[in-house]
Amino acid sequence: MKREYLQYVAARREQVEAALDRYTSGLDAPPRLVEAMRYSLLAGGKRLRPILVLAASELFGLDAADAMPCACAIEMIHTYSLIHDDLPCMDDDELRRGRPTCHVVYGEAMAVLAGDALLTQAFGLMAEQAGVARVGPARTARAALELAQAAGAAGMIGGQVEDLAWEGRQADEAQLRRIHSLKTGALFCAAVRMGGILAGAGEGDLDRLGRYAAHFGLAFQIWDDVLDVVGDAALTGKGVGSDARQEKSTYVSLHGVDGARERAYAAVRQALGELEPFGRDAWVLRALAESVVDRVA
Amino acid sequence: MKREYLQYVAARREQVEAALDRYTSGLDAPPRLVEAMRYSLLAGGKRLRPILVLAASELFGLDAADAMPCACAIEMIHTYSLIHDDLPCMDDDELRRGRPTCHVVYGEAMAVLAGDALLTQAFGLMAEQAGVARVGPARTARAALELAQAAGAAGMIGGQVEDLAWEGRQADEAQLRRIHSLKTGALFCAAVRMGGILAGAGEGDLDRLGRYAAHFGLAFQIWDDVLDVVGDAALTGKGVGSDARQEKSTYVSLHGVDGARERAYAAVRQALGELEPFGRDAWVLRALAESVVDRVA
Repeated sequence: MKREYLQYVAARREQVEAALDRYTSGLDAPPRLVEAMRYSLLAGGKRLRPILVLAASELFGLDAADAMPCACAIEMIHTYSLIHDDLPCMDDDELRRGRPTCHVVYGEAMAVLAGDALLTQAFGLMAEQAGVARVGPARTARAALELAQAAGAAGMIGGQVEDLAWEGRQADEAQLRRIHSLKTGALFCAAVRMGGILAGAGEGDLDRLGRYAAHFGLAFQIWDDVLDVVGDAALTGKGVGSDARQEKSTYVSLHGVDGARERAYAAVRQALGELEPFGRDAWVLRALAESVVDRVA
Repeated sequence: MKREYLQYVAARREQVEAALDRYTSGLDAPPRLVEAMRYSLLAGGKRLRPILVLAASELFGLDAADAMPCACAIEMIHTYSLIHDDLPCMDDDELRRGRPTCHVVYGEAMAVLAGDALLTQAFGLMAEQAGVARVGPARTARAALELAQAAGAAGMIGGQVEDLAWEGRQADEAQLRRIHSLKTGALFCAAVRMGGILAGAGEGDLDRLGRYAAHFGLAFQIWDDVLDVVGDAALTGKGVGSDARQEKSTYVSLHGVDGARERAYAAVRQALGELEPFGRDAWVLRALAESVVDRVA
C-alpha cells in the first residue's frame, strides 16, 4: 500500500508540474513578469492541494486529467499567497524552500504583480475548467465559488490579516486554531470539496470531505510547528527555531513538542474517521493524511 | 437625448453603488480588512466599467439587474488595481480622488490584502453570476475567461509592468498606446464584451463591441492626459501637471494640448463608427463615448 501510494503521488505530482508549466508557457506577457510567476510557481513543493483536488475527484469517478485546470488553479492561489505573505510589508521573509523569495529576486513591485497575475490566472483556469465536457460549467461555477470564498476575505486572506494582528503577542490555542483554519484549513477544505463537486459528489459526501480536510489541515499545521523546532533546516528550507525567534505562538510553545505531536496524531485519526464510509476507495486520501505526520519536510 | 442619457447613467450608477455596498456588507471577515476594501471600493468614481457592462447587456436585451454581479466584478478588479498601483513599491501615490490612498490610511500590508480580497471576490461574483437563470453558467464561464485574460498577465497587469519599465524614460507613441491599451483598454473591452456575452450576442457583434471599446479607451486615456495639464485639481483629485513632474510620456507631451484633443475626438469618432450597425438601440454606448471627451474630471 505504501508503495502504491508513493507511486500515485509521484505520478500526480508529475502531471501537476507538467500542467503548471504548460499553463504558464507562451503567455503573451512581459517576459520578466512571466519569469517571476514561474520562479515561484515552479519551485517544487509537495503540490498537496492539487493532489487533494485530484484524489477527491478520482474518489467519485472523475479522471484526474479532467480536474487538472482546477487542481492547478488552487496551486496558483497557494503560490500567490506565499509571494504576497513574504513581502517586506508582511512577514518580510527572504527565504522560501531554501531559495530567495520572489521580491528578493525580482523586486517588490514585480512580486506584487506576479502574485496578482497568478491569482487572476487561477480563476482563468477555473473558467477553462468549465469547458471540460465531463464536468461542465454548472459544477465548475460552484467549485469556483468555493475557491473564491476559501481564498478570500472570509478565508485565507482574513487569516493572514488575523495572523498579522497577533504579531508580537501570544495568541491562545483557540485563536491559533482560528488563524490556521483560515490561513491553511480553508484551502485544504476547498481542494477536496472542489474535487468532489467537479465529479458530482452529493452534499453529504462533500461535507464529509470538508471535515476530513479540516482535521488534515490542523495536523499539517501542528506538524509544521513541530518541524520548526526539531526539523532539519536543509529540508524545511527555513531556519530551525524561526517561529520562536519571532515570538509567535505555536502548538509547540503551547503544548511542548510531545504534546503537539500527540495533537497532530489525534487530528489525523479524526481525519481518517471521516473517510470510513468511503471504504477502500478512499485509500489515497487516507494515505495523504497519514503522510502529514512523521514527514521530515 | 442628453437628459435621457444623464438619467440613465445616474440610475445605473446608483444601482451599481447599492450592489457594491451589498456585496461587501456582512462579510464574515476581519472588520478592518472589510473597511479597507470598502474605503477604496465605495470612494465614488464614475463606475464607467460596470455601466459599460450593463449598457452592452441591455443592448442585447438582458435586464441590467441580471448582469449586476459581473458589472460589480469588473469594478472590484479596477479598484484592486488602483490600490496596488498606488503602493509605495509601485507608483507611490498618496492621493486618489482627493483622498489619502488605501495604504496611507490602513498601512501597506492591509492595502495589499484588501486588493487581493477585492480581486478574489470579483471572481466569486462571476461564479454567482452563473446562478442568474437568464444568463446561466456557460455564458458566465466565457465572460469570466474574458475578465481573467483582460485583467491578467497578458492584459492589465502586463500593462502595469510595462508602464513601470518605462519609468523615467520617454516612451514613444507606439509604446504609449501599447501600455494604455493593456492598462486601460483591456478592461474596457472586457466590460462591453462580457455584457454582450451574458446577453447572448453573436461573435461579430462581440468583436464590434471590442473595437468600440478600444477606441473609447484610447480617447479616455488621451483625455486624462489633457486634464492633467488643463484640469482642475479639485476635480481630478490629483495635482495638475503631476505627469510632467514625473517626466512621463503623455499624449500632450508628444502632440501638445491641441494635438492630443484632436486625437481624442478622432478616437471617439471611430468608436461611434463601430456602433452604426446597431442603430438607435446603441444610444447609451454612443453617449458614453461622447461623454469621455470634454469631461472636466
